Amino acid sequence: MPAIQNIKVAVDAVVFGYTSKEGLSVLLIKRDVKPFRDEWALPGGLVGDDESLEDAIQRELKEETGIGINYLEQLYSFGQPGRDPRNRVISITYYGLVKPDAFELQANTDANDVAWYNIKKVPQLAFDHQQIIVVARERLKNKILYQPVGFELLEEKFPFSELEKLYMAVLDRPIDRRNFKKKVLKFGFLEETTEKQLLDGAGRPGNLFRFNEQKYFQLKKEGISFEI
Amino acid sequence: MPAIQNIKVAVDAVVFGYTSKEGLSVLLIKRDVKPFRDEWALPGGLVGDDESLEDAIQRELKEETGIGINYLEQLYSFGQPGRDPRNRVISITYYGLVKPDAFELQANTDANDVAWYNIKKVPQLAFDHQQIIVVARERLKNKILYQPVGFELLEEKFPFSELEKLYMAVLDRPIDRRNFKKKVLKFGFLEETTEKQLLDGAGRPGNLFRFNEQKYFQLKKEGISFEI
Repeated sequence: MPAIQNIKVAVDAVVFGYTSKEGLSVLLIKRDVKPFRDEWALPGGLVGDDESLEDAIQRELKEETGIGINYLEQLYSFGQPGRDPRNRVISITYYGLVKPDAFELQANTDANDVAWYNIKKVPQLAFDHQQIIVVARERLKNKILYQPVGFELLEEKFPFSELEKLYMAVLDRPIDRRNFKKKVLKFGFLEETTEKQLLDGAGRPGNLFRFNEQKYFQLKKEGISFEI
Repeated sequence: MPAIQNIKVAVDAVVFGYTSKEGLSVLLIKRDVKPFRDEWALPGGLVGDDESLEDAIQRELKEETGIGINYLEQLYSFGQPGRDPRNRVISITYYGLVKPDAFELQANTDANDVAWYNIKKVPQLAFDHQQIIVVARERLKNKILYQPVGFELLEEKFPFSELEKLYMAVLDRPIDRRNFKKKVLKFGFLEETTEKQLLDGAGRPGNLFRFNEQKYFQLKKEGISFEI
């Protein structure tokens, strides 16, 4: 066991955003400090000696992006020597999925800009942050197969097609729509209302759906097994 | 962002063992250093400045327990201030499931003893290691629902009941045996041989099974959805 250690600990967050119009995006900041000054990166920074990892990532998000998210999950710890050109820094990363409209962005401290980037148009990033996003994306894809998703992302009432679009955006592939609907309704976390969808174009208007809040959070806790 | 940081980084491992006779166990060491001297704990220690997290946990396992395991997975990072009475130490933890018979235990460096403890008879542990085992146990339970398990744990050929016992030990609950067998055979990672089981007692001897190696590792990579 080494008697002296020269390693620093950081936290970084992959905050995914979803809107039915823009699809999946990720929250990035432009660095106002060296190294990689003026390059895009994930929000994050060093952990304070007396703060928990969760408090540290909340503080960094608030400082660098202006937003507060209290339901991030730990993703993975990245610790390869050399991942930071200054000295050894281990990053403990977090991820979450939110509704971008709910937040007002405001860059500060180590960031001079902050923006949502469509997941397919992410610029070159500082450090190994590109790789961290890849890992977070995979975790998110897996997560929606064992937990219901959408409660905080969709309107209170929505056409069923909105839920399909959300799952296709996160999974990044088409789904078997008939099977998908059958399974979702069987889980019971969604209920059909008698209200009709307002349509811009042609087609038969379907009923709107809403989440059954109690069932949704019960299944989120217990876990589901969603083969799509 | 704090300019100076006084946090150390450790790695710790939850190595689960499985035998059909003893069930599920966990590998513990008796500490030969302060704090918690002579108390049982998970093997682990501080990360060297130039070694990867994976190399660090391999080295610690080798030093403290004598064993080498190259297929540990990262579990979670525990960083609550106060979890170590000396100073702030963040532990990046790993877990794995192995066959205890394959290893010869040998305590050294920071450990003066090493042993497998049945998961239901774990003694009081140093630090927050009890909590780390709880998290690892939950992760293992979930893992066997999306990845086949048993290849490295069972004999080359085995009665089907051995696989049932393994799953029941990890899940810590009974399973619907008929359904379980139907699903396992449908996945195709197991194949029935024409050899018969040797029975000690009464009962009709069933055929022995073996893993279809190619299918097993393919499904391990792709993932399954195993509702048991």
